[in-house]
Amino acid sequence: MEKVGVGIVGSAFAASLHADAYRRCPYATLVAASSKAPEELRQFCSRFGIPHAYDDLGEMLARKDIQLVSICAPNFTHKELALAALSAGKHVICEKPLATTVEDATAMVKAAAAGRRLFYAEDWVFAPALVRVAELIAEGAVGKVVYVKAKETHLGSHSPFAQKREYCGGGAMIHLGIHAIGFCLALLEDDLTEVWGAVTGGGEANLVHKDYTGEDWAVGLLTFAGGARALVEGNYVTVGGLDDIVEVYGSDGVIKVDLSQGSPLNVYSRPGFAYAVEKADTTKGWTRPAVDELRNLGYPDEIAHFVDCVRREQPAKRGVRAEDGLRALEVVQAIYRSAEEKRAVRLSPR
Amino acid sequence: MEKVGVGIVGSAFAASLHADAYRRCPYATLVAASSKAPEELRQFCSRFGIPHAYDDLGEMLARKDIQLVSICAPNFTHKELALAALSAGKHVICEKPLATTVEDATAMVKAAAAGRRLFYAEDWVFAPALVRVAELIAEGAVGKVVYVKAKETHLGSHSPFAQKREYCGGGAMIHLGIHAIGFCLALLEDDLTEVWGAVTGGGEANLVHKDYTGEDWAVGLLTFAGGARALVEGNYVTVGGLDDIVEVYGSDGVIKVDLSQGSPLNVYSRPGFAYAVEKADTTKGWTRPAVDELRNLGYPDEIAHFVDCVRREQPAKRGVRAEDGLRALEVVQAIYRSAEEKRAVRLSPR
Amino acid sequence: MEKVGVGIVGSAFAASLHADAYRRCPYATLVAASSKAPEELRQFCSRFGIPHAYDDLGEMLARKDIQLVSICAPNFTHKELALAALSAGKHVICEKPLATTVEDATAMVKAAAAGRRLFYAEDWVFAPALVRVAELIAEGAVGKVVYVKAKETHLGSHSPFAQKREYCGGGAMIHLGIHAIGFCLALLEDDLTEVWGAVTGGGEANLVHKDYTGEDWAVGLLTFAGGARALVEGNYVTVGGLDDIVEVYGSDGVIKVDLSQGSPLNVYSRPGFAYAVEKADTTKGWTRPAVDELRNLGYPDEIAHFVDCVRREQPAKRGVRAEDGLRALEVVQAIYRSAEEKRAVRLSPR
Amino acid sequence: MEKVGVGIVGSAFAASLHADAYRRCPYATLVAASSKAPEELRQFCSRFGIPHAYDDLGEMLARKDIQLVSICAPNFTHKELALAALSAGKHVICEKPLATTVEDATAMVKAAAAGRRLFYAEDWVFAPALVRVAELIAEGAVGKVVYVKAKETHLGSHSPFAQKREYCGGGAMIHLGIHAIGFCLALLEDDLTEVWGAVTGGGEANLVHKDYTGEDWAVGLLTFAGGARALVEGNYVTVGGLDDIVEVYGSDGVIKVDLSQGSPLNVYSRPGFAYAVEKADTTKGWTRPAVDELRNLGYPDEIAHFVDCVRREQPAKRGVRAEDGLRALEVVQAIYRSAEEKRAVRLSPR
Repeated sequence: MEKVGVGIVGSAFAASLHADAYRRCPYATLVAASSKAPEELRQFCSRFGIPHAYDDLGEMLARKDIQLVSICAPNFTHKELALAALSAGKHVICEKPLATTVEDATAMVKAAAAGRRLFYAEDWVFAPALVRVAELIAEGAVGKVVYVKAKETHLGSHSPFAQKREYCGGGAMIHLGIHAIGFCLALLEDDLTEVWGAVTGGGEANLVHKDYTGEDWAVGLLTFAGGARALVEGNYVTVGGLDDIVEVYGSDGVIKVDLSQGSPLNVYSRPGFAYAVEKADTTKGWTRPAVDELRNLGYPDEIAHFVDCVRREQPAKRGVRAEDGLRALEVVQAIYRSAEEKRAVRLSPR
Repeated sequence: MEKVGVGIVGSAFAASLHADAYRRCPYATLVAASSKAPEELRQFCSRFGIPHAYDDLGEMLARKDIQLVSICAPNFTHKELALAALSAGKHVICEKPLATTVEDATAMVKAAAAGRRLFYAEDWVFAPALVRVAELIAEGAVGKVVYVKAKETHLGSHSPFAQKREYCGGGAMIHLGIHAIGFCLALLEDDLTEVWGAVTGGGEANLVHKDYTGEDWAVGLLTFAGGARALVEGNYVTVGGLDDIVEVYGSDGVIKVDLSQGSPLNVYSRPGFAYAVEKADTTKGWTRPAVDELRNLGYPDEIAHFVDCVRREQPAKRGVRAEDGLRALEVVQAIYRSAEEKRAVRLSPR
Repeated sequence: MEKVGVGIVGSAFAASLHADAYRRCPYATLVAASSKAPEELRQFCSRFGIPHAYDDLGEMLARKDIQLVSICAPNFTHKELALAALSAGKHVICEKPLATTVEDATAMVKAAAAGRRLFYAEDWVFAPALVRVAELIAEGAVGKVVYVKAKETHLGSHSPFAQKREYCGGGAMIHLGIHAIGFCLALLEDDLTEVWGAVTGGGEANLVHKDYTGEDWAVGLLTFAGGARALVEGNYVTVGGLDDIVEVYGSDGVIKVDLSQGSPLNVYSRPGFAYAVEKADTTKGWTRPAVDELRNLGYPDEIAHFVDCVRREQPAKRGVRAEDGLRALEVVQAIYRSAEEKRAVRLSPR
Repeated sequence: MEKVGVGIVGSAFAASLHADAYRRCPYATLVAASSKAPEELRQFCSRFGIPHAYDDLGEMLARKDIQLVSICAPNFTHKELALAALSAGKHVICEKPLATTVEDATAMVKAAAAGRRLFYAEDWVFAPALVRVAELIAEGAVGKVVYVKAKETHLGSHSPFAQKREYCGGGAMIHLGIHAIGFCLALLEDDLTEVWGAVTGGGEANLVHKDYTGEDWAVGLLTFAGGARALVEGNYVTVGGLDDIVEVYGSDGVIKVDLSQGSPLNVYSRPGFAYAVEKADTTKGWTRPAVDELRNLGYPDEIAHFVDCVRREQPAKRGVRAEDGLRALEVVQAIYRSAEEKRAVRLSPR
């Protein structure tokens, strides 16, 4: 097979991240996209040069020239869409979280076991800066890793689906913090034994976003069998642009990564300009404009990996297998349970 | 009274922080120091030009020309020393933590109520960068504060007294994290309702320092009556020099402070040099040498404030009153209890 | 003499820098100020608690309780004011530049030789970060210093006197770059052999400020007898707040100093706040607010040094003696001459 | 033509930069390499999977499956090699500087005019951060650009050919500063009117490298017809790793770029690790390890552009055409002449 034919489900923000990545990949062809929002779909296809647009998913899945489907639709639709695509014989990439419940995610993993591949789109696993972190650790730069801190935070999602618990499966932890969780699980390669969590409860209990039904602030602490700890955060109470930070503490070193605003550029602008970083509410004054934000966040390398997995029938990297998505969701749910019950929650080994 | 006469109890690291600060204060005179370590005491007095040295505390306390005593001795001795100094009619500054148990600290607060003043030496309250943070918040720069993160971490204490639970009262949280706690309590000026904590247990349960009987890693989460959260950390697993970080998240802004390594200097040195920052294990390669580390950490302004309180019979600032030290210790102990019981701990309003 | 009595000539920006510094100095008393701008003078004295205000300099100089006079008036008045104060028997601190011509400056140095002291107020010599630089060099941290870069730049002076060549003696080099020159001359302690310079010519030849009659951009290169080079800059074409940078390159190390925006604070503010750094045109968005800007720039330590010189009849530090001010001015004039003649200018050894 | 066949002349450092970039390009095939150093050539071909190795350039150029030749050999050989490749009917990419003399470079440009393409490999033109700078300027982020500063500096070249004037054509300016010159000429798109320069003279006149016959420190100032200035630097007296900095000052904004050490990673390592940044002499202590150094410096995008130019017969981008290489060399030579004559040099419009 020379090039992999791709169909995208969705036409909003996440769909654009995938489409950009496919366009950079010489071994993929964007064949079609499907969405319930016809005008958004038209613009999306036009922007990325996608030749075929479908309002009916089944029609898109019936195409023989599509081997791989990216699911970039709201969280609560992931299960149904993934099962449909898998049963149509397509390989599937599903955006984070894998689903809104562990049950749904488990069903997806099982469905994939029958034949076609299911990939979990945790882009952080391919973020070049974080790949470099893994290399440095492997080289012994920091000795034994004992503590990791990771967070994704910003000022609130632009998507109405992210603001409602029923669509999203929760709030800031399932939507943002799950990146930090997925990254830590992939990095530490160890069994989790205990999870603790704290969240604002949504609605009036939120710190800032009283209109979100999911929490707008969340913290989780993961304890691994070998003793290492990971402190993960997701929140919508951080203004000033996307703030994704990873810190690794080892017995002989420290690594600090500013994934979102660690740009080589420092800019002061009176008039402002088109774009600095995701979720920034101004480009005036001092900013650190990203040079290639989507690459920094891992999307092109992630998609290239999935395309390669399909073309060469290779296994997916740790952190982006379907079961990794399931495990990340289990951890999110354990954080929610811990926050609810105000006590630490023990996890059974995987 | 023109100048306040001062006696220092102790001759080790903390004593040097106070001595340096007194020397910068035109309204204080360093009269004497007292210590059980005669050679260390001799060198200490010589270094700071202190004319009188005592191995017997009682003799020092008998001097009429001393009005103010700084207690810079191991944590477990604070109570006894403070009571002795207070009953000798001296005003007392006690280093953090106020004591190793809430009972001891309560006794100290009561003893001070009888007449002489008892100050709690939380230097962060006077760290110029953190004073600036409080000003910015008061000016409305970040809107309503909803979340604060604060930590003090380094690679392990140089003091044998800090490595044993019986001398120190715990480990990294009581010794380092207490700065973060004291600062947050002073800044947020609100009742705490709930505390959660996690710590490594000391000894073999520690991440790195298996020979410390207190924990070498600790995290605490404070929930305030008005909803704000504070995440505080103290650990001994952070190499690369003292790492003191404060972050304030408000509804309309963010403040990030690098208290220990946020120097205007960035230096690369092949041969190295005398001193970069506290607890750094090298001055070779790239470093951010502090310009005036003790001032950055608040000591001179703190001591000047206490001297001024004594001279002008003024009340101490919020955060450095004896009761603030007691409250900080209550929070530390609540963190320890939460970690022990693996559940959140509710605090009664102060 | 217990305290030194001080009179300030001027009531504008530079006068406030001195007044703030005197107020921090326990060995000085601000006695009086003199200015031609009565309303500004009134507000100035009120702001700094200065008891006596004079519109006539002679009356102020007649006071017996003034021993030290700070000249903080426009550059072209320095000579006349300094001569008046010296002949009234006062010690004099003169702001940079010492004068607008080498002839005037030479006359001032000669007048001071007769008895009273004349100090040259180059605050950078006392900037704590730059004092630390000198210490690091002395400790051998960077080996032999071979190259220094230093600049002061901002978006244009708020003073009408700085915008006209006849009042200022030039433009950005004499007004801003002179800090860099004075610092380099003090640091390198070596004879200058050659000076090269380039400036925009003022007026229509300027890059941005066509209404300034002095240059709005200037660069100078100094070659020292031992081979070291110094590249100095001053310009009014740098928006985003005062930008003072010093870099030292040695055979075994590098020191980079961000004197004006190297704050430990990083702030994002939607509403803005009172003050971030000098010459910043906004406090909204991301800024690095100074913690104690005047101290960072050296004013309090500079004034304390001059007061100490007077009280204890000590010699002034290299870099702030009257002859250092004269030499800095000679270098500025050599830069102007080089730019005019478009060739390097040789300097006779001092 | 599906893929472009490539031959590389050289097997040392610059050759590896090109080989890495070709390997990332799906539209190029590395066919062969040629070098006078047989063992180095063998290792080079093995490392990059290049199937054919030649000690005789003529034999390599005789291959029909090579359409494009990269010249990565010492500067003084560029002319002869380029003419040979062009007359063999190959398109040619020549590393910087285009040649060691303006005469040679002119001959190369003329030879290329006859048919085959000659590209000038100024990688900075494709450095993603600098491409972003050009976009920001085009968007009006900084208003009108009036002043640019750019430099490449490090601790001295590892190549013996870079240390001798006869092989290199000069010293730090022709070897390092030429990046800054090429970038400024491409960015400002304006005629140069005047050049000023200063260099250490090589040998004993050098600041640090007395054994280099070319200068180890150089500064140049370029004045453009529209008034803008550019200050360019190249030196070998900067330890601590490659230091490539670009600053753009506009009427309404500022852009500062740290091209070499502006990494999102900040690492402290006691044991050290494999690689941090080019020319760093340690990986211990604090470092800013590059995430993808060669991409940051522009090589992959540059090579992809040249391959695309050949495949699709497109014109090369401003800054990497043969005439741009010639102009950059003319500016270098003007800087050398100015330094020699100690006066500004006027340039005739291009």
